[in-house]
Amino acid sequence: MATTPAPLKDELDIVIPTIRNLDFLEMWRPFFQPYHLIIVQDGDPSKIIKVPDGFKYDLYNRNDINKLLGPKASCISFKDSACRCFGYMVSRKKYIFTIDDDCFVAKNPSGQDINALEQHIKNLLCPSSPYFFNTLYDPYADGADFVRGYPFSLREGVPTAVSHGLWLNIPDYDAPTQLVKPSERNKRYVDAVMTIPKSTLFPMCGMNLAFDRDLIGPAMYFGLMGDGQPIGRYDDMWAGWCVKVICDHLGLGVKTGLPYIWHSKASNPFVNLKKEYKGIFWQEEIIPFFQAAVLPKECTTVQACYIELSKQVKEKLGKIDPYFTKLSEAMVTWIEAWDELNPPKDSSKLTNGK
Amino acid sequence: MATTPAPLKDELDIVIPTIRNLDFLEMWRPFFQPYHLIIVQDGDPSKIIKVPDGFKYDLYNRNDINKLLGPKASCISFKDSACRCFGYMVSRKKYIFTIDDDCFVAKNPSGQDINALEQHIKNLLCPSSPYFFNTLYDPYADGADFVRGYPFSLREGVPTAVSHGLWLNIPDYDAPTQLVKPSERNKRYVDAVMTIPKSTLFPMCGMNLAFDRDLIGPAMYFGLMGDGQPIGRYDDMWAGWCVKVICDHLGLGVKTGLPYIWHSKASNPFVNLKKEYKGIFWQEEIIPFFQAAVLPKECTTVQACYIELSKQVKEKLGKIDPYFTKLSEAMVTWIEAWDELNPPKDSSKLTNGK
Repeated sequence: MATTPAPLKDELDIVIPTIRNLDFLEMWRPFFQPYHLIIVQDGDPSKIIKVPDGFKYDLYNRNDINKLLGPKASCISFKDSACRCFGYMVSRKKYIFTIDDDCFVAKNPSGQDINALEQHIKNLLCPSSPYFFNTLYDPYADGADFVRGYPFSLREGVPTAVSHGLWLNIPDYDAPTQLVKPSERNKRYVDAVMTIPKSTLFPMCGMNLAFDRDLIGPAMYFGLMGDGQPIGRYDDMWAGWCVKVICDHLGLGVKTGLPYIWHSKASNPFVNLKKEYKGIFWQEEIIPFFQAAVLPKECTTVQACYIELSKQVKEKLGKIDPYFTKLSEAMVTWIEAWDELNPPKDSSKLTNGK
Repeated sequence: MATTPAPLKDELDIVIPTIRNLDFLEMWRPFFQPYHLIIVQDGDPSKIIKVPDGFKYDLYNRNDINKLLGPKASCISFKDSACRCFGYMVSRKKYIFTIDDDCFVAKNPSGQDINALEQHIKNLLCPSSPYFFNTLYDPYADGADFVRGYPFSLREGVPTAVSHGLWLNIPDYDAPTQLVKPSERNKRYVDAVMTIPKSTLFPMCGMNLAFDRDLIGPAMYFGLMGDGQPIGRYDDMWAGWCVKVICDHLGLGVKTGLPYIWHSKASNPFVNLKKEYKGIFWQEEIIPFFQAAVLPKECTTVQACYIELSKQVKEKLGKIDPYFTKLSEAMVTWIEAWDELNPPKDSSKLTNGK
C-alpha cells in the first residue's frame, strides 16, 4: 500500500486514549506513521501497553499524569476515555487528531481506503462558513462553490477550529437507541463536509475528531467522567457544547462530515446505560443552558471564555446537581494546568515529551 | 420503465412556469403523469404551449392571471419565472412541487433514475429537527437515527414545511461565479437530507422545490421581478428568506439535500449579471435584515407573519431603494389575493381549474 503524503507532519499530534495493546495501529500505519502519537494510558498504570514497531510516540499513564500535574491532576478523568484531553494539554503541536482504538480504516464507495487524517487536515486548513448555509455543502471543496444568493461579503469565511468526522458501521448511539436497534449499522456514505451554523449546537463525538489546538485547545476539556463521577460517556458532548459556544463567540468555524472511520464494535449498552442515565436526564437542561449562554465581548481568548463559562455552569447548572459545581471547579483547574504547561510561546522552556 | 407508486396524487400539484413547449415532461412521464400540473405560461399569452399527451393540467397565461386577479394581478411578476407563484395561489392541493422546464431526471450513483417527487414527498411527510444538529443527517431516514447526545425531548421533531432539492450538472451559481467558472459541473451526489437549523438562513432555489401549501403557502411569494422591475433572479431567494424567518417563528421545518434533478443548461451569465447586479449589492443589507427580523408572538398564522414582515420590509429596506416600498406593498396585495382565492375551507365555493 502506498504511503500517502503527510502534510503538517511536524505540526500535528495523534492522541489515543487506551487500556490495551495498540494493534489497531497496524491498519493505520501508512497514514499515521509519519506523525507523532500521544498515547494516554487509562486504568492500571502498571500494565504494559504494546505499540507496534516504527511509531514515534510518548505514552503517559496515570502516574505520569499525577507527576506532571500534581494536585491539578484531579481535573483529568480516570477509567474513562475522557482522560484523552490530557494529551491535548501536553502536546506542543498546532493540530490534534484524536481517535478511539476500536476505529479502523473505512473504505469509500469506490472501495479505496480513506485517509481520515488527510481529510481532517483539509477541513482544518479550509475556512468555515457559519453565518449562512451553503446548499452545495463545503463551498471550498473541489468542484463546488458558493451558490447563487450567498452574500459575497461572507465568502471569505472564518478560520476552522474543529473537524468532526463520522463513523461507518457502528453508529454513535446512546444506550437506549442501542438497546432498541441493536443491529443497526451505518452504511450511508455521505460525501459532504459542512459547517455547523452559528448558534446551532451539535453532539460532538470524540471517536474521530481533529482540531486546531492554537485556536480552540483550552476549550477541549473532556470534563469529569468515569471513576468517582456520577456519569460517563458525556465527555465529548461536554467538550462539544463548550467548544461550539466559544467558537461562535470568537468567530471560529466547526465542520462535520467527512472523513469516515470504520467503527468496529458497539460498546455494551447495559454498561452504557448505567454511565449515561443521569446525562440523558441532565442534558434536557444542559442543552438549553448552552443554547442561551452569552459570553461578554471582553472575553477575547479561549481561556477567558472558558473561565466565564465555568462561572455560568456553577451558577446555572449547579442547581441541578452538586456534580456541576465540582465540574465548574475542574474547568478552572484545567485552564490553570493548561496555562502552566503552555506558557506564552516566546518564554517557553518546555520541550515535547517527558 | 415501470411507473412508480404515486402517493398523495390527489393532494399535490406540480407547478411549472414556462415560455415554451413542455417536451421535457416526456422524461418525467413515469413520475409526473399521475399528478395534476399547473402550467404558468410567461410572456406572450397568444403563444400556444404544447403539453405532451396524457398529462392532466390547467394552463394559465397572463390574460388568465389578469382576469382572475384583476388589479391585484400587479403582484404577479411578468417575463420572469417568479410568475410561478401564481400557480401556488390557484392550487387547491395540500402540497406543491415546482420544477423548471430545463430540469431532467437525474441518476443516482447506481445509475437508477431518481424519482425526485417521491423523495420530496418523503421529506415533507417526515418531521424536521431544527433545534439541534444531528451529525448523521436525517434521523428519520432508513438506517439512521438520532445520535448520542441528542436531547430526547427534541426527537419528535416539528412538521416539515419545505423540501429543497438540489441539482446535478449545472449548479445554481450567480452570474459572477458563472463567468469565473464557466465549465464547473456539480458531480457530487451527496446522499443526505438535512434540516436547516433554526435561525440559519439559506439560499432557496426554485428549480426543484416542494412545500406544504397548508403550512407555508402564503409565504411562498416570489416577489416582483422581471418586466418593469430593477432586478431578476432573486424571486426564489426572496421567498426563501421570508419562508425561513416565518418557519422559525411558527416552529416549522425546512429541509435541503435530496432529491437531485439534472439541470441541463446554464442560463446566459451576461443576461444574468444584468438581472442580478442590484441584488448582489442589495443582498448584503437584505440578509442582515432577515437575520435580525423578529416577529411578535401575536403573529400565529402565515398571513399575519407575512403582513408583519411586509411592514418591516417597508420600514427597514425601503431606505435602500424605492423598489422595496413597492415590493412591501406587493406583499400585502399577494396576501389579499391569496385570501380571496383561498377562503376558509368550509365556506369555499371555488372549484379547481378555470
